[in-house]
Amino acid sequence: MQALDEAGVPVIEVSHGDGLGGSSLQYGMSLVEEMELIEEAAKTSRRAKIAALLLPGIGTKKELQQAKDCGIQMVRIATQCSEADVSEQHFGLAKELGLETVGFLMMAHMLSPEELAQQAKLMESYGADIVYIVDSAGTMLPQDVIDRVIALKKVLNVPIGFHAHNNLGLAIGNSLAAIQAGATNIDASTRGLGAGSGNTQTEVLVAVLSRMGIETGIDLFQIMDAAEYIVDPLMDSPMIVNRDALTIGFTGVYSTFLWHAKQAGEKFGVDPREILIELGRRKAVAGQEDWILDVASDLSSAKGR
Amino acid sequence: MQALDEAGVPVIEVSHGDGLGGSSLQYGMSLVEEMELIEEAAKTSRRAKIAALLLPGIGTKKELQQAKDCGIQMVRIATQCSEADVSEQHFGLAKELGLETVGFLMMAHMLSPEELAQQAKLMESYGADIVYIVDSAGTMLPQDVIDRVIALKKVLNVPIGFHAHNNLGLAIGNSLAAIQAGATNIDASTRGLGAGSGNTQTEVLVAVLSRMGIETGIDLFQIMDAAEYIVDPLMDSPMIVNRDALTIGFTGVYSTFLWHAKQAGEKFGVDPREILIELGRRKAVAGQEDWILDVASDLSSAKGR
Repeated sequence: MQALDEAGVPVIEVSHGDGLGGSSLQYGMSLVEEMELIEEAAKTSRRAKIAALLLPGIGTKKELQQAKDCGIQMVRIATQCSEADVSEQHFGLAKELGLETVGFLMMAHMLSPEELAQQAKLMESYGADIVYIVDSAGTMLPQDVIDRVIALKKVLNVPIGFHAHNNLGLAIGNSLAAIQAGATNIDASTRGLGAGSGNTQTEVLVAVLSRMGIETGIDLFQIMDAAEYIVDPLMDSPMIVNRDALTIGFTGVYSTFLWHAKQAGEKFGVDPREILIELGRRKAVAGQEDWILDVASDLSSAKGR
Repeated sequence: MQALDEAGVPVIEVSHGDGLGGSSLQYGMSLVEEMELIEEAAKTSRRAKIAALLLPGIGTKKELQQAKDCGIQMVRIATQCSEADVSEQHFGLAKELGLETVGFLMMAHMLSPEELAQQAKLMESYGADIVYIVDSAGTMLPQDVIDRVIALKKVLNVPIGFHAHNNLGLAIGNSLAAIQAGATNIDASTRGLGAGSGNTQTEVLVAVLSRMGIETGIDLFQIMDAAEYIVDPLMDSPMIVNRDALTIGFTGVYSTFLWHAKQAGEKFGVDPREILIELGRRKAVAGQEDWILDVASDLSSAKGR
């Protein structure tokens, strides 16, 4: 935290993967109480803004108020890309609390650029100070990113951000594409630490942007050192594109589908990747895990024929 | 080998990193005698062509003849990008032996696109059936790749290839840029296994191209399985962008300079990355390791002032 702040990282998100209140038996327990982490981060930071993530339906007003009391200056409010409307009161509350707000449109590949822009516009109308295109499954190609940034630019007055995952090895490539299309805010993590194959690797992005003459305000050597000597030793395993992560990136489905597809594949004698490809085609969304058995059964019958 | 062949990989290079005859105390010993490996590969392969790498000055006519006798169908002849002229007789011999030939222009970022195209044209005139742009230091940005592919396309009649390293996290992004600019041959390795931060990851590239509707002839599931179950368990450590690899990608110098810069940095109290940045500016090439002490001394004096 201190190393990131000293290197000049402008915003540091302190959050469970499912945001405020996300630590639970269902979503995975945090090792340390989140409010303690936020309080410590806010005390330590001299320059960086401290942000928290909030998923409507998981985090509540109570936790947002607590997080504000513990020192956050920004809240990132995340919804499925087609459900921006569930975030209206959360933006309202955040604004009442005097927080800077980010709208976070997850699984953004599932909508057309124009549809996504409409959802982004909703978030702007609720009070989002920035709207992020979030490639949750790491499945976008550079052109997908460019098309979406351009579509959002056409309708928004607020800045546009981009959040990549590296499942197709394109976290850096897509981040560059986003910047070239007009995005001004890019999420990143040292050593790429994050779900799937990880996120855009901060120190690499800083190096690339420096080479391009784009000033980030982040000291390259300091962020490289923080990644090498602080973050790397803390990681259980490095971020790589393995078979599971590539399957998610290739099919563009929710990573939570993977386990279910493996179970169903075993039951029906079908390659789980075939199941996920078909689920991707049918644009299954979270909550439609029951489709997995249907698809597995269909594929199994088709094979039998 | 067999798994790559069965998955449909069209060409498999069997080589020491320094090519035929590269196994030595100076360059690192191979664990198995190279000719045995080539012979075994040629026997096993049913569809893939077997290729070897040859660096004029390291590998000789004798080894090329031996490799041909052991079953190679293709030789990749590699020179520093500004020294294509040293490869003339090697192309001649390869053609006499009835081999398909690839020209391999290493450290290709060090020449302007137009200068590089002239070197590529030389290789074509010697008999290269394909010419590769080789980003040995993993330092190119997508636009650098595009500019070079376009420059080569303007002057060559033979196809153009691209060989990436992932030091800036751009192996996949740059490979896509190369293809979009007109390159038809892309080097890759499963799990990215290769020097520095590794090469373009085969199974990821196949997935991405499949998503783009570009047919590679490689079976995605088979190559994913080969990477996961055969190559990954053989690797000592995964390919990541660590501090050293990023330093090479950022500065664009020879990876062999890194060790010398660290020694010199310690001696003169200078950050080795500062030394390498300056060497990159001065466009030092292999053999100019003595510049390192000069640069370190200059930087140290400048600091003292």
